[in-house]
Amino acid sequence: MPVSTIEWHGGIDGFCRIIEQTLLPTELKYVDLVDQRQMWDAIKRLAVRGAPAIGIAGAFGVVLGFKESKAKNAAEFDRDLDAITSYLASSRPTAVNLFWAIERMKKVARGLRELPLQAARERLLAEANTILTEDKAICRKLGEIGAPLVPDGRSALTHCNAGGLATADYGTALAVFFRAKELGKRFHVFVDETRPLLQGSRLTAWELQHEGIDATLICDNMAAMVMRDKDVGVVFVGADRIARNGDTANKIGTYGVSVLAKAHGVPFYVVAPVSTFDLTIPDGKHIPIEEREDKEVTEGFGKRTAPTGIRVFNPAFDVTPHANIAGIVTELGLIERPDAERVPAFFKRHGHPGV
Amino acid sequence: MPVSTIEWHGGIDGFCRIIEQTLLPTELKYVDLVDQRQMWDAIKRLAVRGAPAIGIAGAFGVVLGFKESKAKNAAEFDRDLDAITSYLASSRPTAVNLFWAIERMKKVARGLRELPLQAARERLLAEANTILTEDKAICRKLGEIGAPLVPDGRSALTHCNAGGLATADYGTALAVFFRAKELGKRFHVFVDETRPLLQGSRLTAWELQHEGIDATLICDNMAAMVMRDKDVGVVFVGADRIARNGDTANKIGTYGVSVLAKAHGVPFYVVAPVSTFDLTIPDGKHIPIEEREDKEVTEGFGKRTAPTGIRVFNPAFDVTPHANIAGIVTELGLIERPDAERVPAFFKRHGHPGV
Repeated sequence: MPVSTIEWHGGIDGFCRIIEQTLLPTELKYVDLVDQRQMWDAIKRLAVRGAPAIGIAGAFGVVLGFKESKAKNAAEFDRDLDAITSYLASSRPTAVNLFWAIERMKKVARGLRELPLQAARERLLAEANTILTEDKAICRKLGEIGAPLVPDGRSALTHCNAGGLATADYGTALAVFFRAKELGKRFHVFVDETRPLLQGSRLTAWELQHEGIDATLICDNMAAMVMRDKDVGVVFVGADRIARNGDTANKIGTYGVSVLAKAHGVPFYVVAPVSTFDLTIPDGKHIPIEEREDKEVTEGFGKRTAPTGIRVFNPAFDVTPHANIAGIVTELGLIERPDAERVPAFFKRHGHPGV
Repeated sequence: MPVSTIEWHGGIDGFCRIIEQTLLPTELKYVDLVDQRQMWDAIKRLAVRGAPAIGIAGAFGVVLGFKESKAKNAAEFDRDLDAITSYLASSRPTAVNLFWAIERMKKVARGLRELPLQAARERLLAEANTILTEDKAICRKLGEIGAPLVPDGRSALTHCNAGGLATADYGTALAVFFRAKELGKRFHVFVDETRPLLQGSRLTAWELQHEGIDATLICDNMAAMVMRDKDVGVVFVGADRIARNGDTANKIGTYGVSVLAKAHGVPFYVVAPVSTFDLTIPDGKHIPIEEREDKEVTEGFGKRTAPTGIRVFNPAFDVTPHANIAGIVTELGLIERPDAERVPAFFKRHGHPGV
């Protein structure tokens, strides 16, 4: 059973309950977010994280924002909608699912502006819950499509956390492992700890252990040696934004893993819902990369581990060029060797408008 | 001025003073090691570390060991010598400089077995101090030979700590930067933090700052992005053992850096004294790799950051194949594109017997 990463409790005056992921793995604590400021803060400080999960968080954030609305007409409703959505969108810049979910809520809201406020809020809550329910189905589908790519009797490697804690359900990259296990495959997973915030060590190791999957934790800089010496047959990672040519932004370090995978002949797969694609940008150079504060690196563990005054570079993401990607697993199917032709063609073939 | 990483104080009944490197960079504390057990422990727990420095530590360890000797004849002297040297050699398995220094002390000691114990001990202390003095000269020479390889106006990258804290003086890889700065070169250094024990963050960042060299700290998994986007023109690392074909064991993560450097067309240099070469082994597969305890990874910062019971792989070193190495800077000169022919030929040309 996956954990309940994010859920709504009560009606339109209710609250959003999330797992406080910064405390894992030593403490499993839930926190209740009662207004949009608490949601903004939870996204910003990574209490809720992972591209699909922050999409859902953004949608519930819109519902929370409208708890304070006193809109008496369509114009006031529009004004509140704009204020709430721009505020929430300012929490983190890279993962496109956040903007996708907020945009979806906005589109629905525009059709509700003539309704009584209470009724409009009911419909917004229903939409946010639909996004959550759809995400669960998408996770299952990603697992289904990705599981055949897990080589039996060998090892896989993953970076960061693209698991249940990054989604409403079974995860993206980790869904592949969960489903492969259900199908009776035998395999082992190397987990990059993923500095600076250790999502691999704190979250992925915890989730895999929870599901009884054979896993070994390594530091990020051990991935090269492991790929050379330990029979790694595949890499699966999640994604925060995928450009039209398949270039993929994901947690810092992913690009390095892709280079190592290529050098060792290991196929490198991205697993992500179609809401992660940003077809408006031609390539990865157009993806804004969030830089976070120095102290995640210099005192990430509550203890200073670098000299005072040292300069730090702390990008939260990097971009993996499509040339390093063997395929992208989406809920609509696998995009093999993604590039500027195959990605748009894939969306066209599935009659999907793109994001 | 470099720091005093390791020094002998007093005569044959004196002690070895080292910097307690586990406390850096927040505290600069010296500890006095008065017997061989304290020395063994200091090497084991990395209070003193870095291949050249633990060679010197091993030599002083022999002097400390003989403080307790009651040898009354050559046979008893030999017995004590064997016991002391095998004990010290068991502290860490990978860096060959430790065995080289112990072997050198042993060779000298064998010529002293007929001397009165006190006189023999005086000679052993003198030999250990000679090893230390020679190391200082070697560091300067490495800097001299390596400095021309620093590209002016660009960035370099280094991994782990191959600085003054790893030697008796200016370091190996860092000696290159120190000398380049003395020569007026303008450059910048990216410092890999080097998980799990953060020697890059704690020690290298501190040393570069101390010498006024422009440096930026990154997590290990950022090196790939930095090499692609930040004009990195060269990589310098130290070494713990170099095989006859140039395969080089160094801190875990070095191999990955070499793969990334190759993929980005960045020349990758090893900087090490000839005492780091083990010409008795044909290639890197014969270098024993120390594995250290799980908690360096799971609670390296005094706080548990991984779930209890998770399996961990924690090799302290990896081996970089000679094919990834542009050159090895030694005190005798630069070995370009080292391989099974060029390394032995280099030693032969310099009339050096090899180690």
